[in-house]
Amino acid sequence: MAIVLGPNRYGKAETRVVHVTRDGEVHHLKDCNVSVSLSGEMEQVHRSGDNAAVLPTDSQKNTVYAFAKKHGIGEIEEFALLLARHFVDSQPTIHHARVAVEEYGWERRGPHSFARSGTEVRTCVVHHDRDGSSAVVSGLRDLVVLNSTGSEFHGFVQDEYTTLAPATDRVLATAVTARWRHAPYAGRTGSGGERDYGRSYAEARECLLDAFAGTHSLSLQQTLFAMGERVLLARPEICEVRLELPNKHHFLVDLAPFGMDNDNEVYFAADRPYGLIEGAVLRDGAPPAGPAWD
Amino acid sequence: MAIVLGPNRYGKAETRVVHVTRDGEVHHLKDCNVSVSLSGEMEQVHRSGDNAAVLPTDSQKNTVYAFAKKHGIGEIEEFALLLARHFVDSQPTIHHARVAVEEYGWERRGPHSFARSGTEVRTCVVHHDRDGSSAVVSGLRDLVVLNSTGSEFHGFVQDEYTTLAPATDRVLATAVTARWRHAPYAGRTGSGGERDYGRSYAEARECLLDAFAGTHSLSLQQTLFAMGERVLLARPEICEVRLELPNKHHFLVDLAPFGMDNDNEVYFAADRPYGLIEGAVLRDGAPPAGPAWD
Amino acid sequence: MAIVLGPNRYGKAETRVVHVTRDGEVHHLKDCNVSVSLSGEMEQVHRSGDNAAVLPTDSQKNTVYAFAKKHGIGEIEEFALLLARHFVDSQPTIHHARVAVEEYGWERRGPHSFARSGTEVRTCVVHHDRDGSSAVVSGLRDLVVLNSTGSEFHGFVQDEYTTLAPATDRVLATAVTARWRHAPYAGRTGSGGERDYGRSYAEARECLLDAFAGTHSLSLQQTLFAMGERVLLARPEICEVRLELPNKHHFLVDLAPFGMDNDNEVYFAADRPYGLIEGAVLRDGAPPAGPAWD
Amino acid sequence: MAIVLGPNRYGKAETRVVHVTRDGEVHHLKDCNVSVSLSGEMEQVHRSGDNAAVLPTDSQKNTVYAFAKKHGIGEIEEFALLLARHFVDSQPTIHHARVAVEEYGWERRGPHSFARSGTEVRTCVVHHDRDGSSAVVSGLRDLVVLNSTGSEFHGFVQDEYTTLAPATDRVLATAVTARWRHAPYAGRTGSGGERDYGRSYAEARECLLDAFAGTHSLSLQQTLFAMGERVLLARPEICEVRLELPNKHHFLVDLAPFGMDNDNEVYFAADRPYGLIEGAVLRDGAPPAGPAWD
Repeated sequence: MAIVLGPNRYGKAETRVVHVTRDGEVHHLKDCNVSVSLSGEMEQVHRSGDNAAVLPTDSQKNTVYAFAKKHGIGEIEEFALLLARHFVDSQPTIHHARVAVEEYGWERRGPHSFARSGTEVRTCVVHHDRDGSSAVVSGLRDLVVLNSTGSEFHGFVQDEYTTLAPATDRVLATAVTARWRHAPYAGRTGSGGERDYGRSYAEARECLLDAFAGTHSLSLQQTLFAMGERVLLARPEICEVRLELPNKHHFLVDLAPFGMDNDNEVYFAADRPYGLIEGAVLRDGAPPAGPAWD
Repeated sequence: MAIVLGPNRYGKAETRVVHVTRDGEVHHLKDCNVSVSLSGEMEQVHRSGDNAAVLPTDSQKNTVYAFAKKHGIGEIEEFALLLARHFVDSQPTIHHARVAVEEYGWERRGPHSFARSGTEVRTCVVHHDRDGSSAVVSGLRDLVVLNSTGSEFHGFVQDEYTTLAPATDRVLATAVTARWRHAPYAGRTGSGGERDYGRSYAEARECLLDAFAGTHSLSLQQTLFAMGERVLLARPEICEVRLELPNKHHFLVDLAPFGMDNDNEVYFAADRPYGLIEGAVLRDGAPPAGPAWD
Repeated sequence: MAIVLGPNRYGKAETRVVHVTRDGEVHHLKDCNVSVSLSGEMEQVHRSGDNAAVLPTDSQKNTVYAFAKKHGIGEIEEFALLLARHFVDSQPTIHHARVAVEEYGWERRGPHSFARSGTEVRTCVVHHDRDGSSAVVSGLRDLVVLNSTGSEFHGFVQDEYTTLAPATDRVLATAVTARWRHAPYAGRTGSGGERDYGRSYAEARECLLDAFAGTHSLSLQQTLFAMGERVLLARPEICEVRLELPNKHHFLVDLAPFGMDNDNEVYFAADRPYGLIEGAVLRDGAPPAGPAWD
Repeated sequence: MAIVLGPNRYGKAETRVVHVTRDGEVHHLKDCNVSVSLSGEMEQVHRSGDNAAVLPTDSQKNTVYAFAKKHGIGEIEEFALLLARHFVDSQPTIHHARVAVEEYGWERRGPHSFARSGTEVRTCVVHHDRDGSSAVVSGLRDLVVLNSTGSEFHGFVQDEYTTLAPATDRVLATAVTARWRHAPYAGRTGSGGERDYGRSYAEARECLLDAFAGTHSLSLQQTLFAMGERVLLARPEICEVRLELPNKHHFLVDLAPFGMDNDNEVYFAADRPYGLIEGAVLRDGAPPAGPAWD
């Protein structure tokens, strides 16, 4: 019985690159984590260890650094696309490249002094194929948000294992992981500033925060949908949003044994288990995703 | 433009359940982490917060505990299948269930005393659909292995960013994440012991370790393929193996400045970046995977 | 030869308490992690398992929640002191209490909606003894800062293992862990607002940030001393500052093989190893620390 | 008011060194993490950034690698002592060295193939002072153990916040952090094999495991004392043992709502909060610890 090679990819993960631009006294900082995955003519290396088609992951790392020098790191989507195209265009054995970038935020404390801002991380994943097509997904993770009221949960299924009491006023908290897919377009991204990924990111992020804060929630699913919908309504360049929302449970502490009531005042913030709500929200008729979500 | 709901699921993640079986003085321990994801008629809860189709994640957690009591926790694949079928069969609004279980190993230190064994975790993910089909993926993660010789890397592509020297004797180390898909079969899994998931796991694990240790490696891809192939050759019930192998680089330290050579003796174990090799190895003609890898 | 019991303590660690104050529509949030350690007449429980002197850690957890209800959680130092005094004053077998509190910051996104702010955590550790004395240490951790210039390192010892080149312009980055000891004073802390721990914290934090940003640094030790000194000069209520500063190395990438120079532009942010600089800065004649730093 | 420099130290933390010894086909592996902290004439570097007394942390890292080559890495205590003495003896400005080493265990899978064994880490901390004195503390961390019976907890203090029910049969689980101080002795450690740190470690570890498993426990404090005492009774070279034992709570799940009893069968393994029991057990008349526990 023949054994065959299925889907595969390889690359250098988590190259930590920091780029400083000096504008006289005033410096600008980009702090990123770049992961490259390449695929193509990889049958021989798997079968016999023949590396003739393999660009070393070490060279990929070097390329990240050299490109940071040559091109700077602007919006991470553009930097990722530059890298992805380079690998596919320069290496005949590489048919497809996936580049993921995380960016860590810094707030200015002086002309050349900075402090890390927030727990949240901006992310992107791009794909580029030898057929010329690209896909761009932007996003963020670890954006932790909490509403101290305006959340209910009742009217749910009751089975023999249901003991949960309905809630008409609860804390709703989550650590948002959101990714949004950009609609394809004719121009080559990054070649002429046709897309403003920085503004797109900032506004999508605001939509997520606003929809979370502004939705009177009867379930975390409803909030999830509202968050995705808000992004799609505000940002025409985005055609699909995927969200992963852990329900970071805040349980009301029972203070009755101590003769106290607890009118939504004192909570225990639990670690595990947690609810996990995952969903996609997209435009009707959104173009096919291709490998965008891989 | 209409906004639609795409793929979605929800459930209780990371329910930590420990089950003790008392056989007189001698106790047996199962220590698991169970994550449930359900999908089905979820349009309304996303659109309007109507929870009429939603079985609370709290009830799912309760079900895990109640099933541990009712059925014990035998092989994690069987426990996961029991749970997945229960949710689909008992709830008309639930069309599909995914249950993932991690199991932590303990070695006996006395009749009812145990010590955690190894860094590695046994895993499984099962899917059950209202059409009656099931899929079972078993696996492990965090199995850390190292060969101190028998690994080479040369003959690779040289581009303008390549500075890596060819190596004819290097350390090869990785933390194995492996998942393997069981071929479907006629009987209902778990209903009569037709499958011995415990033995299957133990032997697949040995295959992985043996193939890693026994393969003279010209590239980590070659080792990956050999590991998958070894499992498939030994275990007919398994039709596909997927592996994620981070290349945990061990760099030879340059001791020349101190007047010393370093003949593969002293290494720096690096954290980041790292190579990451991912691949699937399967039987020619393996049945379609369906949702197995989701 | 007799075996004796040495220093010991016990308690409930990491009670996660969230307190919501409702001021009409506008809510206020305190999000804390409280760890209690008690010591006293613990010989018997260690020798024979006689728990007659042991207040269960479960009761300590309950006390944290009940006190959050009764007193609210104001400044964490005051909350910690309330708890520490309670345990010592109410339990004759408890002679000493240590209470540590971490507080997570949230920024307002709406009248009752919040987003986690920053990676940094505000901390305090208080001690209270049956002799009536208290000690208060405030602080923070995980405040990540970076200067992209204004840092040098040269003139150091050269031994046979030294290969480091002198640097006249380097990136200086660290994750600040700082703790500062409050001078004791006559009044009972927390009983009448004599101390404004909130303002003290905010200003000490600003001093640390300003001194980091504003010090032209010839070594991280110099920066450490400047940070501690700045706090002491600005805040008379603080008598000692202790700092732990990991030197988060940013290495200039060698781009010469690619025909590029690298004029302090592209850096590799390394994980391990890292320099670690630890030091105390205090007023001459500061009162004895007692158990403050335990 | 004068500002003075208090206790301080600096060094390179977490140098990851792997050493391979080739005995023909059969290789031997040592995998360690070394952290160096030096102190001495450090007033000027703190005050003015004058590095004339500072041996760079980079040189300390190089020394770790060079010493691994020169001396091999035998027992970690001896390797740490070699390093500590080197820094103090070779640098007049360094008056005291602290070297901490962690060692990761590997089990053999072939002549030159290995798999990481266990979650536990062997540790040591040594101090060496210019006055010629040394202190050696050995230990381990992350040794996770569980007794499924043989543990009770009752007879404790009842205060107004006590709701805990007494338990006559509970699960007792902890992740052991243990450190033990070696009595000083005349000979210079490491100079002639007078001390067998490998055997001492192996037997101390067995004592801890045996005492945990073999103690019918009325409180975790009692178990702690028994563990320390067991080590002291068995190993004359050890004069003090310090233990940190988090009480990893396993709560019996209430299955009554589902019509089931739960006779110590199904548990919820909780994360936070947790009890934390810390204590020292030592010989009466043990010599002073000096800086051993710093």
